[in-house]
Amino acid sequence: MKVGIIGANGYGGVELLRLLKQHPCVSVEKTISHSTQGCKLTEQYPHLNNVYEMTLEKIDIEGIARNVDLLFFATPSGVSKEIIPLFLEREIKCIDLSGDFRLKNGLLYEKWYKNTQAKNEHLQNATYGLTELFRSEIKNGHLIANPGCYPTATLLGLYPALKAKWIDPKSIIIDGKSGISGAGRNTSIGNLFAEINENMKAYKIGLHQHIPEIEQNLKVISGEETRITFTTHLVPMTRGIMCTIYVDLMESIRTQEMIDLYKETYKNEYFVRIRSANEWPATKEVTGSNFCDIGLKVDERTNRLVIVSAIDNLVKGAAGQAIQNMNVMNDWHEKTGLELVPLYP
Amino acid sequence: MKVGIIGANGYGGVELLRLLKQHPCVSVEKTISHSTQGCKLTEQYPHLNNVYEMTLEKIDIEGIARNVDLLFFATPSGVSKEIIPLFLEREIKCIDLSGDFRLKNGLLYEKWYKNTQAKNEHLQNATYGLTELFRSEIKNGHLIANPGCYPTATLLGLYPALKAKWIDPKSIIIDGKSGISGAGRNTSIGNLFAEINENMKAYKIGLHQHIPEIEQNLKVISGEETRITFTTHLVPMTRGIMCTIYVDLMESIRTQEMIDLYKETYKNEYFVRIRSANEWPATKEVTGSNFCDIGLKVDERTNRLVIVSAIDNLVKGAAGQAIQNMNVMNDWHEKTGLELVPLYP
Amino acid sequence: MKVGIIGANGYGGVELLRLLKQHPCVSVEKTISHSTQGCKLTEQYPHLNNVYEMTLEKIDIEGIARNVDLLFFATPSGVSKEIIPLFLEREIKCIDLSGDFRLKNGLLYEKWYKNTQAKNEHLQNATYGLTELFRSEIKNGHLIANPGCYPTATLLGLYPALKAKWIDPKSIIIDGKSGISGAGRNTSIGNLFAEINENMKAYKIGLHQHIPEIEQNLKVISGEETRITFTTHLVPMTRGIMCTIYVDLMESIRTQEMIDLYKETYKNEYFVRIRSANEWPATKEVTGSNFCDIGLKVDERTNRLVIVSAIDNLVKGAAGQAIQNMNVMNDWHEKTGLELVPLYP
Amino acid sequence: MKVGIIGANGYGGVELLRLLKQHPCVSVEKTISHSTQGCKLTEQYPHLNNVYEMTLEKIDIEGIARNVDLLFFATPSGVSKEIIPLFLEREIKCIDLSGDFRLKNGLLYEKWYKNTQAKNEHLQNATYGLTELFRSEIKNGHLIANPGCYPTATLLGLYPALKAKWIDPKSIIIDGKSGISGAGRNTSIGNLFAEINENMKAYKIGLHQHIPEIEQNLKVISGEETRITFTTHLVPMTRGIMCTIYVDLMESIRTQEMIDLYKETYKNEYFVRIRSANEWPATKEVTGSNFCDIGLKVDERTNRLVIVSAIDNLVKGAAGQAIQNMNVMNDWHEKTGLELVPLYP
Repeated sequence: MKVGIIGANGYGGVELLRLLKQHPCVSVEKTISHSTQGCKLTEQYPHLNNVYEMTLEKIDIEGIARNVDLLFFATPSGVSKEIIPLFLEREIKCIDLSGDFRLKNGLLYEKWYKNTQAKNEHLQNATYGLTELFRSEIKNGHLIANPGCYPTATLLGLYPALKAKWIDPKSIIIDGKSGISGAGRNTSIGNLFAEINENMKAYKIGLHQHIPEIEQNLKVISGEETRITFTTHLVPMTRGIMCTIYVDLMESIRTQEMIDLYKETYKNEYFVRIRSANEWPATKEVTGSNFCDIGLKVDERTNRLVIVSAIDNLVKGAAGQAIQNMNVMNDWHEKTGLELVPLYP
Repeated sequence: MKVGIIGANGYGGVELLRLLKQHPCVSVEKTISHSTQGCKLTEQYPHLNNVYEMTLEKIDIEGIARNVDLLFFATPSGVSKEIIPLFLEREIKCIDLSGDFRLKNGLLYEKWYKNTQAKNEHLQNATYGLTELFRSEIKNGHLIANPGCYPTATLLGLYPALKAKWIDPKSIIIDGKSGISGAGRNTSIGNLFAEINENMKAYKIGLHQHIPEIEQNLKVISGEETRITFTTHLVPMTRGIMCTIYVDLMESIRTQEMIDLYKETYKNEYFVRIRSANEWPATKEVTGSNFCDIGLKVDERTNRLVIVSAIDNLVKGAAGQAIQNMNVMNDWHEKTGLELVPLYP
Repeated sequence: MKVGIIGANGYGGVELLRLLKQHPCVSVEKTISHSTQGCKLTEQYPHLNNVYEMTLEKIDIEGIARNVDLLFFATPSGVSKEIIPLFLEREIKCIDLSGDFRLKNGLLYEKWYKNTQAKNEHLQNATYGLTELFRSEIKNGHLIANPGCYPTATLLGLYPALKAKWIDPKSIIIDGKSGISGAGRNTSIGNLFAEINENMKAYKIGLHQHIPEIEQNLKVISGEETRITFTTHLVPMTRGIMCTIYVDLMESIRTQEMIDLYKETYKNEYFVRIRSANEWPATKEVTGSNFCDIGLKVDERTNRLVIVSAIDNLVKGAAGQAIQNMNVMNDWHEKTGLELVPLYP
Repeated sequence: MKVGIIGANGYGGVELLRLLKQHPCVSVEKTISHSTQGCKLTEQYPHLNNVYEMTLEKIDIEGIARNVDLLFFATPSGVSKEIIPLFLEREIKCIDLSGDFRLKNGLLYEKWYKNTQAKNEHLQNATYGLTELFRSEIKNGHLIANPGCYPTATLLGLYPALKAKWIDPKSIIIDGKSGISGAGRNTSIGNLFAEINENMKAYKIGLHQHIPEIEQNLKVISGEETRITFTTHLVPMTRGIMCTIYVDLMESIRTQEMIDLYKETYKNEYFVRIRSANEWPATKEVTGSNFCDIGLKVDERTNRLVIVSAIDNLVKGAAGQAIQNMNVMNDWHEKTGLELVPLYP
């Protein structure tokens, strides 16, 4: 199958290139970048020498549509909502790694993203691409709204307990911690090595655009409107997201019962790994891979459940899950091209 | 004044040495280390060349008592409870950086530290050394139980709102994040650079020995028995602790009102700095200094308060606060020797 | 083909496991560890959950010999020289990642490794496994002495110019810089995160055991006895080695001529990438991959050549090159299982 | 004494602020920044809250000249050469941390800095501020050209052996390694955390503007024209420079003799610390301090001397040495305000 990448010059695009190289059924035919059109990929990313000798092209709708079967969008927010409709008309399937089509309620997009929403028709037709939860819809999707990194870690972490109604959806608090690659390859003082190294910062507390995305999908799971408290912190590492989630239990449940519920729920999910009692995930244990690792503890002193969920933000939180979705859409084995062992140490 | 350091070979001891060098009223007369007795300090820490040319000695109660007026204990837990009574008998004031005398209820020590408790008489006579909250008791103290790093950040972060009864003590959740120096200079696979770098891990969730210390002092502030949910995470940095605290509001309060309350409460406290709305602390902004930086936000969507509190775990969370307490005990200006500007970048 | 790994619990062993998972012709049948025998691999390395569910076994010569065709040794120095002969007798091919069989002159081993040498018969039969230089010998080898990390970067960096006699072998100076994973998963104060982070140290200057290994192979290339100056430095990163090499030119040559020579020499070598003028390698550009990146500059002011060579010490400097050698020994395509794109960022 | 800082918003300026806070004889009256004039210092650097509550002002020659006795210039290259003459006319002493007045030969400035040179009169009157070597000239200086970070480490490392004529000046090779703060607070893709972390890069090899500065001062020491080979590498740390220097011995000398020579030469220099045989400097051992640590080894196999020299680039390599020079100019004790213990760990 022939694929293209719009926004190939960012970290999400480059991670797609890394992973697609391992994929036996796919060839990358087009790499598009608005800001660096005309450059060779290797000028921007010398690590791709001998691997991808292509040039970054400007966007040419017809030219791309003739040459690819599926497109990945790894563009900044606000871009894909303008372009994807043109490719859908031409029957090119699209997987969008940005947030443009994730919120069914366009007004929420306008509020949290400070931008005009996509056409409602497209919002309603888009499929939210959290593979483990929405596999059957993804299979028939034409436009996949690939989830954000924090929502992926959070929703996989909450799903079994919330589905089982063992926890109170009104009590959800999520403490998110992210490596700096989530900020993209954008120059700003706050992203400089000298400012980030040996440093941890809180940022955008209560203002992060992933809040409505999480809330929308918690409602899909629980059937109830849900308001969450969600905070975000920058950690001095390049890759990795960890969400520590706090939630009140509806009844008294022991840690082991909770772990059993999670293991049972995810027993057929290769990419979700549930830890044993008192063992906790570490982001490095998923680096470079599509795994989501989850640890659980019932705090019996306060009757709360603590969930710790870790992913590589660029893989399961972006490019890896996009490829997982592509596999589902094509009826390929879901692990195809994604059986990468985490890079440890 | 002549001081000594028991446990001078650990990171806490070495940080005391760094800070005491700037102190105009103090000379370090004795540096004691059980594990490295007989070594020169500079063999263990070459950065001290030209600064401290002393030898690490073995413990000799009489010899020390004759030569110092005040002792700092930077020993692993379980050590000072055996030795401090011998010095108190000899009228040497003691500041203990370990947890041995922090819990008034010795049974809690036995449960959380898995060790026998100190004599009850000493537990009751010890003064909890969170300077900003217990200054007058510290002034007359002979045995100061210097607070743990997480409790310092947490209690300073909660004090004004809890004192004002604006928040519900039953709802407190603390998400703690720490640099690796908190683990001390102990060799274990989990502390190796290759295991910690580019990694974030949760650890000891619900089991951390700082839980009863925080709860005991929350009760002192609020008058109510309190159970907290407390989690801890290792962040790939050497210094710094950040606690993100979640708590339900008792009534509707705006962020700015909360900030005003904190600014008012701490208006005479040089070492506590309250951030403006939507500005958040970063651990590097306190590195090497005795500051505690606090950011605040009322999440109006969920009626919760989010508090972010940051300190350098080795300074305000250990050696710096110990010196601050020594200053109070001696009626010196509290900032003496502690006006260090954070090392940034 | 069935393979086993002796010393599977170290970083070299674990990196073999990561890479072999991608290899289409190989199954790992045995993972042996002296120090952690009886443990599941996932207890030592949770990142291997769902990937390798094997147990670390103790060494059982007969049992292993019956079950594998080829063995990798990722053992500390001094181990394989005792064990490999037992497997060679049983016609199991061996690839040794340690230094035990690299030096033809056993006395040099004794001097630099402070240990008794292997049997001379085995030393003489061992093939030095720097694939690009000794491919034909490796093809027929039964015992491959896989090169050290510094020698790999150094020899690939010097080979074309030395072979062409454009540089003076008596003038070679090598400034080596390594990430900390080269020190293995060994607990020592010097390897702790708090000691390594934000730190760079020189170590073992003039004493490193890779000196005789480099000199032996420089003589193979140039035909002359050679003495090098070689220094080593620890850099606060987990993976990566960079060698900056200084050497006097025999005649006046321009940078571009030198680059052309290197490009021509390595034109059929997928894993060696020569940079253009004034472009320099970075270790992250090879992380997780088997590439060796080389940059070159003639310093016309001093008539010296500067060579910068970068590899991932655990891949091209250890496990990756071992697999490359296995591919050569089996007449598989040399890239089999090794077409991994560097993990960037 | 009243001082001002021109370029107070960069890392050099902020480090001056940190150090001057400890200085008993100085008050900072003016902080000038072209790019952020009108901002409070704490807006740019929140770590300065409660410490410096001043505003960054635009440059006003008369206003500054009336209010300060001495000015520090921490400006990008090309700025101070225009402004310093105006202050010299007004009898304000100037210490310039940029390279504008370091090269006596203005043509070399034009070649290496790609900019027009300062007036020759000022170039000739400027005093090169490597304190340990040029103390008496500095004492009477009005315009101090504070040395670059690499030259400081290099020249202190070479001085005793070169002065003693034990080494061949024609053979000097310097392998420089620097933390990223040397690049300043400038946004560029190459300085982003995600690009620098877990990465080491060579850069500007043979092109660095510190080459003529080093060569000029080597000639002052040895009396001979000298050409060096000098390379530079970025290391994933914020602070710290290490120079590893290779040089041929003129005669056979043992390591201990060399160490003795260095200890003798620097016996009265508090800030230069010579290591014992087989002990090597580490950058973290000087972090935050004005020390320069030097390790030495004669490689008897090749008759070369290896020198390893480490400083904190922002302290001894910039702001600290500037203050040391100010102390000399004012006949204050040279250590005044600079007795900071390195921040370790």
